[in-house]
Amino acid sequence: MKALVFQGPGLFSWQDVPDPGIEDATDAIVRVDTVTICGTDLHILKGEVPDVRAGTVLGHEAVGEVVETGDEVRGVRPGDRVLVSCISACGHCRFCRERAYGQCRGGGGWILGRSVHGTQAEYVRVPFADLSTHPLPAAADAQYAVLLADVFPTAYEVGVLNGRVSPGDTVAVVGAGPVGLAAIATAEYFSPGRIIAVDLTPFRLDAAKQVGADAVADAAEEPERLIDDLTEGLGADVVIEAVGTPRSFEICTRMVRPGGRIANVGVHARPATLHLEELWKKNITITTGLVDTYSTPTLLSMLAAGRLPASSLITHLFELDQMEEAYDVFARSADTGALKVAIGGHHPPLVTRGK
Amino acid sequence: MKALVFQGPGLFSWQDVPDPGIEDATDAIVRVDTVTICGTDLHILKGEVPDVRAGTVLGHEAVGEVVETGDEVRGVRPGDRVLVSCISACGHCRFCRERAYGQCRGGGGWILGRSVHGTQAEYVRVPFADLSTHPLPAAADAQYAVLLADVFPTAYEVGVLNGRVSPGDTVAVVGAGPVGLAAIATAEYFSPGRIIAVDLTPFRLDAAKQVGADAVADAAEEPERLIDDLTEGLGADVVIEAVGTPRSFEICTRMVRPGGRIANVGVHARPATLHLEELWKKNITITTGLVDTYSTPTLLSMLAAGRLPASSLITHLFELDQMEEAYDVFARSADTGALKVAIGGHHPPLVTRGK
Repeated sequence: MKALVFQGPGLFSWQDVPDPGIEDATDAIVRVDTVTICGTDLHILKGEVPDVRAGTVLGHEAVGEVVETGDEVRGVRPGDRVLVSCISACGHCRFCRERAYGQCRGGGGWILGRSVHGTQAEYVRVPFADLSTHPLPAAADAQYAVLLADVFPTAYEVGVLNGRVSPGDTVAVVGAGPVGLAAIATAEYFSPGRIIAVDLTPFRLDAAKQVGADAVADAAEEPERLIDDLTEGLGADVVIEAVGTPRSFEICTRMVRPGGRIANVGVHARPATLHLEELWKKNITITTGLVDTYSTPTLLSMLAAGRLPASSLITHLFELDQMEEAYDVFARSADTGALKVAIGGHHPPLVTRGK
Repeated sequence: MKALVFQGPGLFSWQDVPDPGIEDATDAIVRVDTVTICGTDLHILKGEVPDVRAGTVLGHEAVGEVVETGDEVRGVRPGDRVLVSCISACGHCRFCRERAYGQCRGGGGWILGRSVHGTQAEYVRVPFADLSTHPLPAAADAQYAVLLADVFPTAYEVGVLNGRVSPGDTVAVVGAGPVGLAAIATAEYFSPGRIIAVDLTPFRLDAAKQVGADAVADAAEEPERLIDDLTEGLGADVVIEAVGTPRSFEICTRMVRPGGRIANVGVHARPATLHLEELWKKNITITTGLVDTYSTPTLLSMLAAGRLPASSLITHLFELDQMEEAYDVFARSADTGALKVAIGGHHPPLVTRGK
């Protein structure tokens, strides 16, 4: 089959690799219909996730059809249409029992496209298939549903739920990339008073307005001032960090009100400075998290109910064999205006074709 | 009257000052029976709390008798024996209405011994007397009750409650000074599985065992190893930071398990490094806080019930006119073995007299 293979920092190609087969009795083999690319894949390509070895097939998000299952798989069978979650879960360890699947110590967690071959391929072996896939209704659009493999549950669990967004809250979302946009869209479920999106890029701020931001601020121009103006100097009730840099994290700590919450969603490669000399007395809560995907069923319901604006996040469609081009468009998002790209499937054109 | 007056960094004396009088209709004047000294007072003396002006009477903890009240005071009257809380509260601002008295924006918060004259005096003017004092039973020992003005509610609210100590938890308390010891003692209310105290000083670790620590670790010798050994490499469910230095905070972030909580209680003068490159995916919660003192009535009940080991924290007794000596003993705690000092009152000697 063909797959997108990481070959070391800066190097990758869509190439022939052996077909995957059942290795463990809890595996399923899924024929991939639609995949997408995550910012984390770009981190891997840059060599910033050093535990990913050359030769690994990338990708941890997919929609596809089960074609084979191991003897112990009970929840899915060949012919089922499934969402392949970014998080695999053994179901038995202490963390899985607490629904903290992202922290699985039984061999799961974030493994696809990291320690085992991933979804950016024609077929993928999905370990622990029962808890690592979700059945999809036949009517679900694959190019939307694929966003529920990672970006929406990450934004919702690690941003909105950890941040305890509540009715009337002033919510600042720092970073209006796909995860930030998904945080804005799902923060709306809790009827916040207003949502302010912060980013450096005008097209992302436009997208933020489209998914529900009430106001936007340029990250380069002291965005905390807008928060101050809107809250009479108090600060935001909830600040969601969806960038992953020391600077963006520190901006968040300047935006939060006394007693407020900062939910870090960004993937960080470097330490940040925590200004405890200011913050020790401010009664703030900071949370971090890798997604657990316990909310995926809820989000699938919201997608079915038309209350999850996945279409606003997809800017480009590609076929599977255009994978390298899709990476190029996604990596140059500042130039191409890419948010999420949907790759594969036999779907009608929705937005634009890859340019 | 006599009072302990801050005269600028490094300078203070027990000296004559004018008697306080009612200035606002919500004030009470309290004749001081017993006071104590807080680590924060030492920070002020070092010039580390720059908003405290020379000429200010220090102290934010006291037990005493009301001698005069303003026209609008309803909750206390002359002759009442009261605990003077470290936090004054207007009762009307948005924070007071949410019981976040420490963040009061109506003129309260931590003001005693900071922006207004404090309790280390023969008399003190207590603003917002209704919400800034607590009635004390005649039988309450003043030298124990005074610890409920700050150290116990701080440890309990900002450490134990913010950290959500729960049955079975492994709790690490970093810093076994008075606040750390009070955190250990009140963490016990929630039946944790075990409490590990971490400090540099043997006499503090001995005191930690006395108030309930199951194990102790020398902070200088990679205390995270003991946590790892006791938890099979998992880490502590709750880590309470009760020191206030970048190093101690960073130790806490290395001790916490995935999904665990770090409750910062320490008063910090410098920023810390937050290793988000490790922590972003660890699902941790970090809280900070100035005490609100909403728990003081609960803690007074626990004191009355004999379930608050205040006596274990008091190592030295002084008379009010020995205030300078008390400061000296408290400041040289590494040599003197001082934990908390109780100053004033006409009480029989309990432990040792000042040495």
